[in-house]
Amino acid sequence: MGMQKVVIIGAGNVAWHLSKAIDKVADVMQVYARRLEQAKEIASQLLNAKPIDNLLDIDNSADLYLLCVGDKAITEIVDNMPKVKGIVAHTSGSANMEYLAKASKRYGVLYPLQTFTKGVELDISKISFFTEGNNIDTLLSLDEIASLISPKAKVNHATSEQRRMLHIAAVFGCNFVNHMWTISEEILQNNGYDMSVLYPLMEVTLKKAMEMSPKEAQTGPAIRHDQNTINTHLRILPSDLKTIYQELTDSIQNISRKP
Amino acid sequence: MGMQKVVIIGAGNVAWHLSKAIDKVADVMQVYARRLEQAKEIASQLLNAKPIDNLLDIDNSADLYLLCVGDKAITEIVDNMPKVKGIVAHTSGSANMEYLAKASKRYGVLYPLQTFTKGVELDISKISFFTEGNNIDTLLSLDEIASLISPKAKVNHATSEQRRMLHIAAVFGCNFVNHMWTISEEILQNNGYDMSVLYPLMEVTLKKAMEMSPKEAQTGPAIRHDQNTINTHLRILPSDLKTIYQELTDSIQNISRKP
Repeated sequence: MGMQKVVIIGAGNVAWHLSKAIDKVADVMQVYARRLEQAKEIASQLLNAKPIDNLLDIDNSADLYLLCVGDKAITEIVDNMPKVKGIVAHTSGSANMEYLAKASKRYGVLYPLQTFTKGVELDISKISFFTEGNNIDTLLSLDEIASLISPKAKVNHATSEQRRMLHIAAVFGCNFVNHMWTISEEILQNNGYDMSVLYPLMEVTLKKAMEMSPKEAQTGPAIRHDQNTINTHLRILPSDLKTIYQELTDSIQNISRKP
Repeated sequence: MGMQKVVIIGAGNVAWHLSKAIDKVADVMQVYARRLEQAKEIASQLLNAKPIDNLLDIDNSADLYLLCVGDKAITEIVDNMPKVKGIVAHTSGSANMEYLAKASKRYGVLYPLQTFTKGVELDISKISFFTEGNNIDTLLSLDEIASLISPKAKVNHATSEQRRMLHIAAVFGCNFVNHMWTISEEILQNNGYDMSVLYPLMEVTLKKAMEMSPKEAQTGPAIRHDQNTINTHLRILPSDLKTIYQELTDSIQNISRKP
């Protein structure tokens, strides 16, 4: 394939980031959003993209139609967009690929294992992309665009089933991790400290998990079976955190017994 | 104070790291451990330190006696060491300071909010230390040694009560975070992927939590109240992870409702 023509569908966090990344390696022709204002916000960051708010205005000459929308919106869009010749792909961790068959003979998935927040820049050159295609030609096209967007990372394949498990790994490894830090921040602030006192510990925790593997890097009262400290913590914790503390302590002790 | 003379008591992860850091800014005279082999392992990394395995051999001329041992061992050591003139301090997040009164008229705490693993190097120059002292002179001496060890970080004060809450914040922000990554790794490996596919996501998760505050940085199915995805995840998760997934999802949704 030469320079590809791409239509971005969606205007949320994923669209905000991926449209900019794709615009550097391909030609984003259009950005669709339900409201024109939203489409304009995304398109204004791109070189030639036209904002549209009517699915019937979608250009039929694009190579790739990338749906960067929530799972519910995927079916809605597929039901209402014109049938196209290019590849129709979504970016969701949990939606099935087969939903897309109605929109094109060539369909697939381009799933970025990453957390996106509008306006917060990130290094897109090393995102782990996971691709799926309804045939080998489609799969290879999606692999190509993935490696163009993110040249420093290996492109991986994932079936819909594997992708759902990848999404769960990301929920634990990103969403739940971030929530642990939210709890830390609340505890620190309630005791007169700023979150920043924890930064060196957070950084070292990440570094060790990547250098040693998290299972080997585990420290703390749970893995030491330090029941005195665990009891003290359970006694002085706010009541809404006791259950989580106990559950995670049990889970650390259970997983450490596995081979 | 000029160049301080320090005795390190203990040979675990904390002793391994702090003894090396202190040896750069002070004179570590002795390292005590229950078994001489352990004391030698630590002392061999230091300039002049002598390994000892008898508490009665502790030199009476040191300025600081730093107990880098588990909470249970603190009382045991204090009960059996000679009474000294210098400051006796422990490094524990949960042990009370008053245990130390028996060993010296000057006692306190030098608590590093960090995770230490023997042999895994870390940047000690920006550790958050939290100090407590039985009088102002002792406290200032401990502040001075903390800022010498870790010149890039502000030294903070913490009462025993505050220190216990700091320790809990570290359990959530380090131990539980690491455990989330252990779970991610298990899921990835069971589906044929290497942990490294998650590294870019882990790095961005940390970066966003530090740039935005974790509460604002929260993403994922729980905060979006995306019940379809949550149900799918609960259905396909291994049974030992369902409870944790549900608990943490509820906790994210509860905390997001707070002002």
